[in-house]
Amino acid sequence: MYEEILPQLINTNNTKLVLLVLDGLGGTTNADGVTELEVARTPNMDALISSGSAGLHRPVGYGITPGSGPGHLGLFGYNPIKYQIGRGILEAFGVDMEVNPGDLAMRGNFCTMENGIITDRRAGRISTDKCKELVEKLKNKIQQIEDIKIDIKAGREYRFAVVLRGDALSAMISDADPQTIGKRPIKAMPLSPIAEKTARIVNKFIEMATEILAEEYPANTVLLRGYSKLADIKTSTEKYGMRAVCIAVYPMYRGLAKIVGMDTPQLPGETTEDEFETVKKVWNDYDFFFVHIKKTDSYGEDGNFDGKVRKIEEVDEKLPMLLDLKPDVIAITGDHCTPSVHKSHSWHPVPLLLKGKYTFADDAKTFSERECAKGIIGHIPAEAIILLMMADAGKLKKFGA
Amino acid sequence: MYEEILPQLINTNNTKLVLLVLDGLGGTTNADGVTELEVARTPNMDALISSGSAGLHRPVGYGITPGSGPGHLGLFGYNPIKYQIGRGILEAFGVDMEVNPGDLAMRGNFCTMENGIITDRRAGRISTDKCKELVEKLKNKIQQIEDIKIDIKAGREYRFAVVLRGDALSAMISDADPQTIGKRPIKAMPLSPIAEKTARIVNKFIEMATEILAEEYPANTVLLRGYSKLADIKTSTEKYGMRAVCIAVYPMYRGLAKIVGMDTPQLPGETTEDEFETVKKVWNDYDFFFVHIKKTDSYGEDGNFDGKVRKIEEVDEKLPMLLDLKPDVIAITGDHCTPSVHKSHSWHPVPLLLKGKYTFADDAKTFSERECAKGIIGHIPAEAIILLMMADAGKLKKFGA
Repeated sequence: MYEEILPQLINTNNTKLVLLVLDGLGGTTNADGVTELEVARTPNMDALISSGSAGLHRPVGYGITPGSGPGHLGLFGYNPIKYQIGRGILEAFGVDMEVNPGDLAMRGNFCTMENGIITDRRAGRISTDKCKELVEKLKNKIQQIEDIKIDIKAGREYRFAVVLRGDALSAMISDADPQTIGKRPIKAMPLSPIAEKTARIVNKFIEMATEILAEEYPANTVLLRGYSKLADIKTSTEKYGMRAVCIAVYPMYRGLAKIVGMDTPQLPGETTEDEFETVKKVWNDYDFFFVHIKKTDSYGEDGNFDGKVRKIEEVDEKLPMLLDLKPDVIAITGDHCTPSVHKSHSWHPVPLLLKGKYTFADDAKTFSERECAKGIIGHIPAEAIILLMMADAGKLKKFGA
Repeated sequence: MYEEILPQLINTNNTKLVLLVLDGLGGTTNADGVTELEVARTPNMDALISSGSAGLHRPVGYGITPGSGPGHLGLFGYNPIKYQIGRGILEAFGVDMEVNPGDLAMRGNFCTMENGIITDRRAGRISTDKCKELVEKLKNKIQQIEDIKIDIKAGREYRFAVVLRGDALSAMISDADPQTIGKRPIKAMPLSPIAEKTARIVNKFIEMATEILAEEYPANTVLLRGYSKLADIKTSTEKYGMRAVCIAVYPMYRGLAKIVGMDTPQLPGETTEDEFETVKKVWNDYDFFFVHIKKTDSYGEDGNFDGKVRKIEEVDEKLPMLLDLKPDVIAITGDHCTPSVHKSHSWHPVPLLLKGKYTFADDAKTFSERECAKGIIGHIPAEAIILLMMADAGKLKKFGA
């Protein structure tokens, strides 16, 4: 956003910005006509919004339901349509694998082959333990192909991720996955001459894996797809002049934050308190603090209205731990909505509260979708949030004389 | 905005549009939770907004604090990121110099050189009177270099503006300004072969000025920077089919209006009444009247809450002078916010009222940021204002059958 003029406007100073993201925060009304955020008692957030500004944001666009990747890139100030994060990268992040520039990440399935025909693309949904055992076998026997290092890690049930590391890798190859059962396995084909080596290595991997798994029916071969490399993206420091840190428990969000150059310190545990304690611990080292709470989304996905309410209330209760650090600007929002009546991510506008030295104390008095719709911020694209935070903190100079 | 379709939609008719701009109007809440516009008694504006529509506009973009140039270009219906007005042009406008297409404008500082080293970039902040005296000396002795006419005018303290007039001038030269003290003066360098002549003339100017100022310590040489030419921009008449006039006291705004082809008649004095009288005088000659009130911004910059309140009230009191002319559409807004709690331009959305024959009478009953946030216009980019005014006045035809 405003990429032609932004570099000349960046002003580095000592202000501290906190972006607290409750994953899947916000939603739509249930049969009683209320949302989780409306029902939750949130005295601390209500006090913030009463003295600050309210609004709603759209993570990607009108009617577009964001995955975790686009949802977070928008909040980090990157256009999620311009910067698309590949499925292989997200799979690797989800199992906490490193992906570095130049690496090629992909998703794998264990699957069942009978008489040369794929008969089950999920190998009868083998257990996660079985998956780990099989991945160990593959790891032991496939460490390198030609000059390319091979890294494999088990996911849940039949899923695993593969990262190829080395020179001249390309994502321009076709999926080695017939997508339906009843067909023969297909090879990865190079879609460009520069991808011939990568296709050869991927096919060799499948050939070796099929030999190693020969006696492991129903998980006796593998499918690979979703090849992707890291997007060529400026870091937060390059783009916004801010040293940024990600405080998150789940590997997926830590991985997304790493893409834009955020540090991802280890946490002492997995509670909200552990996360907020870590913010305090690294407070002097950064300008921008992205703090991620996962469970609001999980309860929404489970259709657990009350669980989501309780999680919001728990975060509100612990909020003074962050406020005591005296951030110059704090924003609280979600990366998308996950209404428990919908049991999945949704396209609804996401509630946003913003509080800094110069925020307008508008008429919103409690933190809810309905009150946010009255706010002076209005409806904004997610990318704008970081700019509003920076403006309030004096991190953006005047444009033009 | 909508440049692909706008030319076919323009409809010329006899309607009259008034855009009244209170510079720096709007802001953020102070310690008492109110703004200048909320405190000001504005019965005339309140009556207008009660029967008209309210909204908020963003002059450049989210979180972006506009200078006067971008702030006004947006109001005139030009994208302020696409059309950037150079610093030299604004400096020249600020001291009421003419800048015509092809001219090259730049900013100058008198400065101090000791033993070939710049020791003060502001020449000890010499007085404005001294500046005028030195500029007279330069003007007398440097009227032309090669075939290029040289025009110089004093600004405040150590500042002056230079406009070169003639053929083949280019802004593609480097600043003749080391930017810090303790360094030797540097020459302007051509950044393109087409700029060689311009660099030679600028360097000759500095050489001649340094000779003329030899005995004028501490103002014994000059720095030049901010070279700029007029943007290639369509006039209001070309773009909107309207004969447009600017009623403004300050040279900066008159200069900005000239860029888009507005006429700038002389005023009988500097009061709001003088300005409104001039609108009446030229009422039959134009379609679009840009009326600029400066002092609201000045009081905001000074942190003078009450002064800004009083100025808003004074404009409101005189407003019937404009309303008696029966404009078909009137819009009242600012070019940006200047909250007195912030003491400078800000990024906050700017209140807007619009009243014409077909404007929706929404729920906003008083002219304030808070009420405007409820308005039916919503949040719009500044560029959209002129289109909404034209639409209401029948100056935009139907798009498509």
